[in-house]
Amino acid sequence: MNNKAMYNLTYGLFICTARDGDKDNGCIVNTVSQVTTSPNRIVVAVNKDNYTHDMIMKTKEFNISILTEKASFDTFKHWGFQSGKNVDKAIGIEYCRSDNGIIYIANQTNAYISAKVLYPIELGTHTLFIADVTDCEVLSEDPSVTYSYYHSHIKPKPQPAKKKGWVCTICGYIYEGEVLPDDFICPWCKHPASDFKPL
Amino acid sequence: MNNKAMYNLTYGLFICTARDGDKDNGCIVNTVSQVTTSPNRIVVAVNKDNYTHDMIMKTKEFNISILTEKASFDTFKHWGFQSGKNVDKAIGIEYCRSDNGIIYIANQTNAYISAKVLYPIELGTHTLFIADVTDCEVLSEDPSVTYSYYHSHIKPKPQPAKKKGWVCTICGYIYEGEVLPDDFICPWCKHPASDFKPL
Repeated sequence: MNNKAMYNLTYGLFICTARDGDKDNGCIVNTVSQVTTSPNRIVVAVNKDNYTHDMIMKTKEFNISILTEKASFDTFKHWGFQSGKNVDKAIGIEYCRSDNGIIYIANQTNAYISAKVLYPIELGTHTLFIADVTDCEVLSEDPSVTYSYYHSHIKPKPQPAKKKGWVCTICGYIYEGEVLPDDFICPWCKHPASDFKPL
Repeated sequence: MNNKAMYNLTYGLFICTARDGDKDNGCIVNTVSQVTTSPNRIVVAVNKDNYTHDMIMKTKEFNISILTEKASFDTFKHWGFQSGKNVDKAIGIEYCRSDNGIIYIANQTNAYISAKVLYPIELGTHTLFIADVTDCEVLSEDPSVTYSYYHSHIKPKPQPAKKKGWVCTICGYIYEGEVLPDDFICPWCKHPASDFKPL
């Protein structure tokens, strides 16, 4: 068994947004697939540590903005590396609002999809949402970003190490210290200690 | 609503294989995602028209071979454009067998994953299999093929039309005739009439 085989699966990257009352929020997800065309239905897995997850569980609605190769690292930092529990992610961001009242992002993206949860499936660290597409629009002709394009072109290259520590091979987060605890979870991308390597 | 937005979702392409008794079989799928890392768990949606679907429903086990950019159109034709109900797809093909006894393909691929179905989710035309990864290995360093790479580099360009008809924008299948029935399903890729355009 070589778990690196799992890295060869192909993913896109998306901003998954939700709204609860007056609160807008969103996070980065990589698992959105259309599972049937008739009816038009998608699945998305969302980590339970994300505040957006709890908002979708409550409101049963979300939008997916499909990121393109023009997406900047700042966009990933904004939506992926901080929590809506602590900051208002809608501040300082250009966004639009779809018919369901939820925000979507119209730059560095090529489409958005509005969806209504049919049912959530409990999967330990994540919930898999099976959802009906209620609306979708094309926003640009730019190619969708893949996870491998993000790693090779968007994520900054790691700098030479000055301190002892561990780097998350998924998002680049650096843990400073000699020993990485076995149960460590990356605060940025929520991946486990097994995805870290020494600096 | 512009359903072309759905085309911007990013997919890989995979050979999904199964074994029932002495019968080996497989089909092309595009929706494989890892949904949790602890435990290592994937989802895959398989069209019920595929014989492989019925084999997985019965045996609860399957392999995923991850196709690379080196995959030929013949590979897609072999696994995707004919049914295991009519032909033995293992004949004339180089394959290996993993510990679960199921075949996987070691050329034009970069990894394989063996999985055991945790539970199937009924989704109309498809079943979504949630499955535990029981084994996985890296096979090469070649980049995984994406669905958009397949469309731009692997699928043959349509030839100038000599006859009246309709072409499937998904796989290139040509339906000859003035009128495409509304309930027509592409015999190759199983997409509906809405995915066809006039020649």
